[in-house]
Amino acid sequence: MAMKQVANSAIKAIANSGSSSLLTRQLHASPGSKKIVGVFYKANEYFTKNPNFVGCVEGALGLRQWLESQGHQYIVTDDKEGPDCELEKHIPDLHVLISTPFHPAYVTAERIKKAKNLQLLLTAGIGSDHVDLKAAAEAGLTVAEVTGSNVVSVAEDELMRILILVRNFVPGYHQVITGDWNVAGIAYRAYDLEGKTVGTIGAGRIGKLLLQRLKPFNCNLLYHDRVKIDPELEKQTGAKFEEDLDAMLPKCDIIVINMPLTEKTRGMFDKDRIAKMKKGVLIVNNARGAIMDTQAVADACSSGHIAGYSGDVWYPQPAPKDHPWRYMPNQAMTPHISGTTIDAQLRYAAGVKDMLDRYFKGEDFPEQNYIVKAGELAPQYR
Amino acid sequence: MAMKQVANSAIKAIANSGSSSLLTRQLHASPGSKKIVGVFYKANEYFTKNPNFVGCVEGALGLRQWLESQGHQYIVTDDKEGPDCELEKHIPDLHVLISTPFHPAYVTAERIKKAKNLQLLLTAGIGSDHVDLKAAAEAGLTVAEVTGSNVVSVAEDELMRILILVRNFVPGYHQVITGDWNVAGIAYRAYDLEGKTVGTIGAGRIGKLLLQRLKPFNCNLLYHDRVKIDPELEKQTGAKFEEDLDAMLPKCDIIVINMPLTEKTRGMFDKDRIAKMKKGVLIVNNARGAIMDTQAVADACSSGHIAGYSGDVWYPQPAPKDHPWRYMPNQAMTPHISGTTIDAQLRYAAGVKDMLDRYFKGEDFPEQNYIVKAGELAPQYR
Repeated sequence: MAMKQVANSAIKAIANSGSSSLLTRQLHASPGSKKIVGVFYKANEYFTKNPNFVGCVEGALGLRQWLESQGHQYIVTDDKEGPDCELEKHIPDLHVLISTPFHPAYVTAERIKKAKNLQLLLTAGIGSDHVDLKAAAEAGLTVAEVTGSNVVSVAEDELMRILILVRNFVPGYHQVITGDWNVAGIAYRAYDLEGKTVGTIGAGRIGKLLLQRLKPFNCNLLYHDRVKIDPELEKQTGAKFEEDLDAMLPKCDIIVINMPLTEKTRGMFDKDRIAKMKKGVLIVNNARGAIMDTQAVADACSSGHIAGYSGDVWYPQPAPKDHPWRYMPNQAMTPHISGTTIDAQLRYAAGVKDMLDRYFKGEDFPEQNYIVKAGELAPQYR
Repeated sequence: MAMKQVANSAIKAIANSGSSSLLTRQLHASPGSKKIVGVFYKANEYFTKNPNFVGCVEGALGLRQWLESQGHQYIVTDDKEGPDCELEKHIPDLHVLISTPFHPAYVTAERIKKAKNLQLLLTAGIGSDHVDLKAAAEAGLTVAEVTGSNVVSVAEDELMRILILVRNFVPGYHQVITGDWNVAGIAYRAYDLEGKTVGTIGAGRIGKLLLQRLKPFNCNLLYHDRVKIDPELEKQTGAKFEEDLDAMLPKCDIIVINMPLTEKTRGMFDKDRIAKMKKGVLIVNNARGAIMDTQAVADACSSGHIAGYSGDVWYPQPAPKDHPWRYMPNQAMTPHISGTTIDAQLRYAAGVKDMLDRYFKGEDFPEQNYIVKAGELAPQYR
């Protein structure tokens, strides 16, 4: 691609120039100097509390010195909504936009149209549904994410949420902080995970890690996906393939959503599909909020058809104060956090740096990182 | 033992009598008729919400019909404290006292002295530290619990609590219910469990199940106990034996307490021992509250030396409204719940029924159930 050739030739010129300070000046002046914008959540007082807290505006993925020393311009902000936001100001001339699923810069077709210099959209993390991928593909943009960077983080978090729901943690914690003590009020709906049927909808990288972590709990494990997992892993985890999603739903005590948000999965769990689930089902969704019909979930929690719902994904994000999931019964929600542990931040910051480095050098990214490449969407987003 | 011979001969007489209605009457009149008192937590409005909710006063372990049809008297109550409580009224003439760790009837030396007819103390669950075991042994009482009945329940709960602390769940949930959204306020101290060092102090039935469930998380697993675990399990889990507790403490990111409360372990984690732990340590304690020095834990949470403390055990129970653990920072506490899931209740109710049946028949209990037998304490309580 043309943009890579430019960067590549600039790099070659620099590599031949010898001195590193000279190198920097040359880059500054060169057509290879890029405007890179990062949209992250703001840390404020929390930034100084952890030296590894790189995933916030203040931490800027730890890339500032590295980028600026190469003559690139690096703007970071959390101000991403509305016509007067900081992001909007930079849309017309940015070359690269980095964002995260935790505080996503929604890259609409309109923004893509305005972004005449835009070449590359990077997701620091996994999940690029905040980008209008079709519009990005049509505009010839490259969209890539740090595949694998936080799959362990999310799988661990899913198992935590399964246990929180099955064992009815939240009402117990409430009793403690309100000065109460009522074991019965927790116990009447607290269960062991052992022996229950857990189904994951989607058995990609995260779903597989979840199945491995569930294995010693002696559950009945089911999975639905477009394709079967590796027979070796199927044997190792004992998970059974369910080709027909609607046939799997009524079998599950616990359902975990592990699919990307695409045009096919948007709003997929509506009133009708929830009705197919077992009464009293527990749902964990760390995938994307918009896979669910928001109001249908809230209604089913109120009626008791869903006996517990936990996840860290919402639509939109940040979730507004009046989002119904904040107020529905038996929820164990958090803001979008599972993929942005300190460990995950360090991994996806390194992954973003690696891709920027390759971009500047005109090299390809690791194949699994591409979401949109040369006008084509990755299979999971088709 | 004499009491067993009586029960045994009564049973033999009944077994020979032929008709079951006659049988019942005979038993009523027979010297084998026992007064059994159960002390459980009260369910109130929660009782009717689950047909399997047997562990409460109203559920009475599902034993009422069975006991009364054999001519025994069965009193259940949650009123267990003070000189005028319901329990106190029955102390002088009860034969069997059943209690649970969740709402323990504290059986002091004084109560044992008053209980002239007392023969058998049963714990519906695991952990008989609510009984003065030395006094019970001296009085020739039998103390037994349903060993194994809720070990899976507790191990699962411990893993949940490890994840809740490591991943900093509670502040995230708080944000949701207070209308807030601040990813940074969670993320700056949220980590993956992967790669961290987890040490269990005690690797008995529960500790072993925890190690097995931790295995796929790719942690560095350590354990301290009086004896090494089975080499096969050591190999399977990769857990390393640490003979010297004080040498293990500073190595652990996460410490899980899995010891019984005995005179040796009471208050064992005081200021000095907590100081030996890594700064920022996370502690999970579903064993017994009194193993910790209450104020030392609260102080270390306030100073940040302990970065998170989660458990379901307190001293005393119910925890008073002013218990400092309710108010210390970074706690993820609940009332005593982990071993009283619905699944656990069904198992320990069955175990109590089995032991009562054997008691009436003059048969021995399963050997592992005995805590005090013929004046001797079980090894873990010595």
